[in-house]
Amino acid sequence: MLEMLKQEVLLANLQLPLHGLVVFTWGNVSGIDRERNLVVIKPSGVPYDELRQQDLVVLDLDGNIVEGNLRPSSDIPTHLALYREFPAIGGIVHTHSPWATAWAQAGRPIPALGTTHADYFYGEIPVTRPMTKEEIDRDYEAQTGHVIVEAFKAHNIDPSHIPGILVQNHAPFSWGQNPDNAVHNAVVLEKVAEMAFKTFQLKPEVSPMSQALLDKHFLRKHGVNAYYGQ
Amino acid sequence: MLEMLKQEVLLANLQLPLHGLVVFTWGNVSGIDRERNLVVIKPSGVPYDELRQQDLVVLDLDGNIVEGNLRPSSDIPTHLALYREFPAIGGIVHTHSPWATAWAQAGRPIPALGTTHADYFYGEIPVTRPMTKEEIDRDYEAQTGHVIVEAFKAHNIDPSHIPGILVQNHAPFSWGQNPDNAVHNAVVLEKVAEMAFKTFQLKPEVSPMSQALLDKHFLRKHGVNAYYGQ
Amino acid sequence: MLEMLKQEVLLANLQLPLHGLVVFTWGNVSGIDRERNLVVIKPSGVPYDELRQQDLVVLDLDGNIVEGNLRPSSDIPTHLALYREFPAIGGIVHTHSPWATAWAQAGRPIPALGTTHADYFYGEIPVTRPMTKEEIDRDYEAQTGHVIVEAFKAHNIDPSHIPGILVQNHAPFSWGQNPDNAVHNAVVLEKVAEMAFKTFQLKPEVSPMSQALLDKHFLRKHGVNAYYGQ
Amino acid sequence: MLEMLKQEVLLANLQLPLHGLVVFTWGNVSGIDRERNLVVIKPSGVPYDELRQQDLVVLDLDGNIVEGNLRPSSDIPTHLALYREFPAIGGIVHTHSPWATAWAQAGRPIPALGTTHADYFYGEIPVTRPMTKEEIDRDYEAQTGHVIVEAFKAHNIDPSHIPGILVQNHAPFSWGQNPDNAVHNAVVLEKVAEMAFKTFQLKPEVSPMSQALLDKHFLRKHGVNAYYGQ
Repeated sequence: MLEMLKQEVLLANLQLPLHGLVVFTWGNVSGIDRERNLVVIKPSGVPYDELRQQDLVVLDLDGNIVEGNLRPSSDIPTHLALYREFPAIGGIVHTHSPWATAWAQAGRPIPALGTTHADYFYGEIPVTRPMTKEEIDRDYEAQTGHVIVEAFKAHNIDPSHIPGILVQNHAPFSWGQNPDNAVHNAVVLEKVAEMAFKTFQLKPEVSPMSQALLDKHFLRKHGVNAYYGQ
Repeated sequence: MLEMLKQEVLLANLQLPLHGLVVFTWGNVSGIDRERNLVVIKPSGVPYDELRQQDLVVLDLDGNIVEGNLRPSSDIPTHLALYREFPAIGGIVHTHSPWATAWAQAGRPIPALGTTHADYFYGEIPVTRPMTKEEIDRDYEAQTGHVIVEAFKAHNIDPSHIPGILVQNHAPFSWGQNPDNAVHNAVVLEKVAEMAFKTFQLKPEVSPMSQALLDKHFLRKHGVNAYYGQ
Repeated sequence: MLEMLKQEVLLANLQLPLHGLVVFTWGNVSGIDRERNLVVIKPSGVPYDELRQQDLVVLDLDGNIVEGNLRPSSDIPTHLALYREFPAIGGIVHTHSPWATAWAQAGRPIPALGTTHADYFYGEIPVTRPMTKEEIDRDYEAQTGHVIVEAFKAHNIDPSHIPGILVQNHAPFSWGQNPDNAVHNAVVLEKVAEMAFKTFQLKPEVSPMSQALLDKHFLRKHGVNAYYGQ
Repeated sequence: MLEMLKQEVLLANLQLPLHGLVVFTWGNVSGIDRERNLVVIKPSGVPYDELRQQDLVVLDLDGNIVEGNLRPSSDIPTHLALYREFPAIGGIVHTHSPWATAWAQAGRPIPALGTTHADYFYGEIPVTRPMTKEEIDRDYEAQTGHVIVEAFKAHNIDPSHIPGILVQNHAPFSWGQNPDNAVHNAVVLEKVAEMAFKTFQLKPEVSPMSQALLDKHFLRKHGVNAYYGQ
């Protein structure tokens, strides 16, 4: 079942080491079939160079395994929470890519400093609030999803406009219309994090880019009259 | 038509990922035939590993498409503005290479700190002024070209002496006698940006190199009595 | 003799250049057979691309060579000291990987700042005290082992909980249940050192992560009820 | 003539791009036959991937071309000055490797901060004084050699103990017993520059390593009783 989606999820997972976003098994990609409400995700602990399509795990949105002989990634409750709350997204990526992780560990959001950022993220990339001991102890991976959702709802941000976030003291999650697009956004997030880091080293007091330039770049690419392509 | 130039432009575009200057399609190279006043440029949104010579787009200096079935890079109005105003250049490169982009985002020009810089750039690499909301809203890509030209005219800089610039809150543009030379200068600009970044981390109060050393290195390579080669 | 262990030690040594942890011969891996109390280690000065299984050197825990025609790595007394004092470890790695070495040269321990760290190191990664002139002059490599052991004993740290250390003004040592696991921990230590460096650049006053989050990540992977895998 | 030496010089030149020390033709290696007082060096401007043994240029110590159809690297007067003044060296390397170049541009010597440094450089790696306008204008490349020699003579440093230097506002030169060893030291210098940069970011007030540790590491490898090898 879901062979097309499984192939997309497999290929998207294999993109992670190719883009230098992961070492060992530090990352995972999932995808969702919105008609059947079924999620396909990488199994837990399988190295990327041994990963096969039949190893992928299929679950429903409540976390029940529908198909697959291996355990799903232990981050699956985070993925499921995001799929439930962000109905427009079709794929999710989690990595510990180093530049984005540094911002997550510093607990700092990444402001929009230039057009590379503005082409994909329509404003600051947020960081989640610290999780409480109770949230960590009770239901950690699901609560990780909840603090992500909370960050978007609190500021009324459309997850299609900001397709990623930094989980504090942890690492980035990103998403997209499908698994491939989610990986694309994970690569962009890492590049944007690198550029922003270097910008702050050069100018600690730097201000965000102008709203006019942010609007121009995001909307020429994602707005109703999009025309952009390099 | 223009098959030789198309081949040059194709090969120059393919150099961008090989030199690590681009991810995805974040970059483009164009070339101009000065006798016919025709420009060849990368089409919009085509990945580098699928790019073929017949995909390239030919335009006149007013932006009319003369040949090609695909849309040109959306940066084409910037390229055209530079070709119109800088008659000595034969190729243009735009990338979002990370070190140069960090300087562009910080809004800081790159001073000449050493001979690597002086071998190619005869003084500080400038940064454009911020664009106004009106410029951004009206005719963004053409106005990007105009602020570049303005930066050179305001300080009476010869674009052959400083073959590149940082567009503020955006990224670098560079150029050269032909597309291949423009890519060469894009690589140099990125390396110089990296070295200058690290130099300022080591010595925030560093001064530019001496005029005598700047003259020596630039002129032994580009002056009328050039003799340099490593 | 010990052909299985030799093969493990050979493969583990070859992982070092593949993971970018060494240039030239700046690193070595050893493994121990705990039943026979025999240690297998890389020979001194042999380049990784010429290293063969029969080149490995076998020693007892007193440093007597039991098999092998080449000299063992000159770091062997450090390895032996660790095997004698840390009975649970089965493999040791020494490299001069640049991020971890920078922390060692700065004499700064690496605090636990995020979950990448917490997945493998249950708290701060310590740095040894400076060695005295007498220790350096008398029996340098063995004394290096002693200051490592001293750092763990002084703070009552279980070497299985913190599988690595920074030797001050020198470089990291790491270990694990076997040679392959020791290399795995060396890679993690280098990545954690990189992320922590960047975090401190972004936020010099950053605090360690919460104990609850540190507990959660370390114990879900290494505790009696471990369930973790990405 | 000098076919063995030419092969050594060719192979040493090809090591530069493999070790990531050069882009384009930003570097060169030479070697000397001390019996005949003849120097072999890379020709000017030839890309590394097109370089052939017969392209190398042979000169005497006064700079007269003895064999070869191409111009020698324009840095040849610097090489010749060093061969004349440092009789124990057999090979010289010049690159613009980015970490070492950053220190050169900052005009800062690299103090001995750890054992990676001490294994190869017996103390601080010096930086030349700024060159005067007269020196630059008159006989630039030869004067570059002279300020290098001056830095060693002024502090009575043995060039075998410190096999490299930073030329201010320019880039590193390094040397060794032969061309291959000179490249080895160029790689070490770049790595040491990287580690020292990162160490100063972590601890701006860091002190040099102890003399005892510096002695131990340098002398166990280069002293009369050398025994070292990893």
